[in-house]
Amino acid sequence: MRQVADAAGVHPATVSRALNPETRDLVNKTTARRVLRAAESLGYRMNPIARSLKTSKTGTVGIVIPDLTNPLFPPIVRGIEEVLEPAGFSGFLVNTDNDSHRERSLVESLQSRQVEGLIIATALLDHPLMSELALSGARMVMVNRRTEGLDVPTVVPDDAAGIDMAVRHLAELGHTRIAHLAGPSTTSTGLVRARSFAGAVRERGLSDDPALVRHCRAWYEDAGAEALRELLDSGTEFTAVVAGNDLLALGCYDVFGERGISCPDDISVVGFNGMPFLNKLAPPLTSVVVPHHRIGAEAATLLLDKIANPDLLARAIVLPVSLGPGGSTAPPRA
Amino acid sequence: MRQVADAAGVHPATVSRALNPETRDLVNKTTARRVLRAAESLGYRMNPIARSLKTSKTGTVGIVIPDLTNPLFPPIVRGIEEVLEPAGFSGFLVNTDNDSHRERSLVESLQSRQVEGLIIATALLDHPLMSELALSGARMVMVNRRTEGLDVPTVVPDDAAGIDMAVRHLAELGHTRIAHLAGPSTTSTGLVRARSFAGAVRERGLSDDPALVRHCRAWYEDAGAEALRELLDSGTEFTAVVAGNDLLALGCYDVFGERGISCPDDISVVGFNGMPFLNKLAPPLTSVVVPHHRIGAEAATLLLDKIANPDLLARAIVLPVSLGPGGSTAPPRA
Repeated sequence: MRQVADAAGVHPATVSRALNPETRDLVNKTTARRVLRAAESLGYRMNPIARSLKTSKTGTVGIVIPDLTNPLFPPIVRGIEEVLEPAGFSGFLVNTDNDSHRERSLVESLQSRQVEGLIIATALLDHPLMSELALSGARMVMVNRRTEGLDVPTVVPDDAAGIDMAVRHLAELGHTRIAHLAGPSTTSTGLVRARSFAGAVRERGLSDDPALVRHCRAWYEDAGAEALRELLDSGTEFTAVVAGNDLLALGCYDVFGERGISCPDDISVVGFNGMPFLNKLAPPLTSVVVPHHRIGAEAATLLLDKIANPDLLARAIVLPVSLGPGGSTAPPRA
Repeated sequence: MRQVADAAGVHPATVSRALNPETRDLVNKTTARRVLRAAESLGYRMNPIARSLKTSKTGTVGIVIPDLTNPLFPPIVRGIEEVLEPAGFSGFLVNTDNDSHRERSLVESLQSRQVEGLIIATALLDHPLMSELALSGARMVMVNRRTEGLDVPTVVPDDAAGIDMAVRHLAELGHTRIAHLAGPSTTSTGLVRARSFAGAVRERGLSDDPALVRHCRAWYEDAGAEALRELLDSGTEFTAVVAGNDLLALGCYDVFGERGISCPDDISVVGFNGMPFLNKLAPPLTSVVVPHHRIGAEAATLLLDKIANPDLLARAIVLPVSLGPGGSTAPPRA
């Protein structure tokens, strides 16, 4: 799609609109013709199976999840189902385990079973499969994370505001050297949260030492533990950590246990997501609370709208977050 | 395929037969299993769409879950997928939310999308839909819970042994009045665990006062909290609780917080399942650890066997459990 966009000298979103017969009218006629010619000369072909989605009414929707063991996804799924069900739709869930081959085969499998649309939680910033799906006119909505440059409806938490709340809270407690364990920079949640962190510390005159920021290789507990160990071993001074999500924060708890570090007395930690059971942890994890249930419900609503009216323009919905209570933050040691 | 053949020490044609559920029974069982294991370890993947073109099989299996927010199900699903995937099958997951109407409509939806079999985690002891499915010859396997009187393959944890371990552990600490928060008696897990509890306390000469046993209305946290509040309000004396699952045990933690009860000093608690993150709770929950991943893997293997050979007699597999470490049990106050 990017190649077509470059060849035609337009934005990828324009390519998406021009190639989809349902949205072609939204693009200037001459531009549309230029895009179609570029697509043709580059040998671009729409996926015929994805196209057949438009004509079949099966009452089923595919839900694509990267990692079912991450407690943030079940509430999103529940929110989706609570909207689908009264509308007479069933959700078929597939779990990709963050494996792109598996994701492709599962999506193909859903499409060959003629789901009427897809709700996708696996989006990477640069994601060939998502671009193909969008170009083919598949009815789809992205939740939690998004792919760049695609004209696809999305529902995401206010990642930037959430990180800002976390930094402000720690700054008010007196922390000046705050570390950030960022999620993978291949994901919008990893990138946006890391950018927001950089902005937030600068704005408040806190240390913006680049050594304080580590990108974890995955969103899992053990990747968080690994990153924190490296940070501690590097000798960089810090008194607080903003973790990219709750699992990374739980990885920090593991390292605190290993090294006899007391939280929050030695190091404060803030997570992101507000997973279930956080209030029963030792200490209860302070976390940015994301309305996952509502993210799911809004996504299902967008998808049903799109199924009912394929000409609908894509909307991006950003849902407000809040800083939840907890016991994992305190003023730094004097 | 040649790599798989080399690894398994067989001819490529044998690999093809062994990996295709339709022809698997043409291959010696031990050989077939060796091929499947080799394929799995090499990450060999059949193209499901290509295969469905050749065989008119769909390569999909439905997985029916009662409550996706219960952390015991994601590991079961992962175990299922790790066996399905190398065999060229995809799992479509549906979440019934413990609603029988919804369950029926989701199962019908899966069947009309022509799944080749069902793995069912929603079984009730008396369950009309399960009886209908079994009578209709649907290829199905039950996991974690089972329906009575049906000739259907099942994979369940050793519920009786697990409860016995919990009671023995508490008895060894010196507890004599142990309460049981049982799950709903409509489920095999609720019933078998409660029966085992009754047997275990009698066998050890501990109190078998019926007032010490409460059946919770659901497997959720708040149902556990409700039952413990009733038990405390009834004035029945007890120093320890065996909870029917971890969520019921977490409900106890909530009540301890409300009423200023110290765990384990005032009351000891043992859970059941060994959910993730238990070691980070305050106190870490002592729990009967169930091999959920293996439950899923065994169930998928049974289902693939059944798909390959529909005449296969049903087998019931019971998997061993163990008592996990934790900090929620201690001797009773003198």
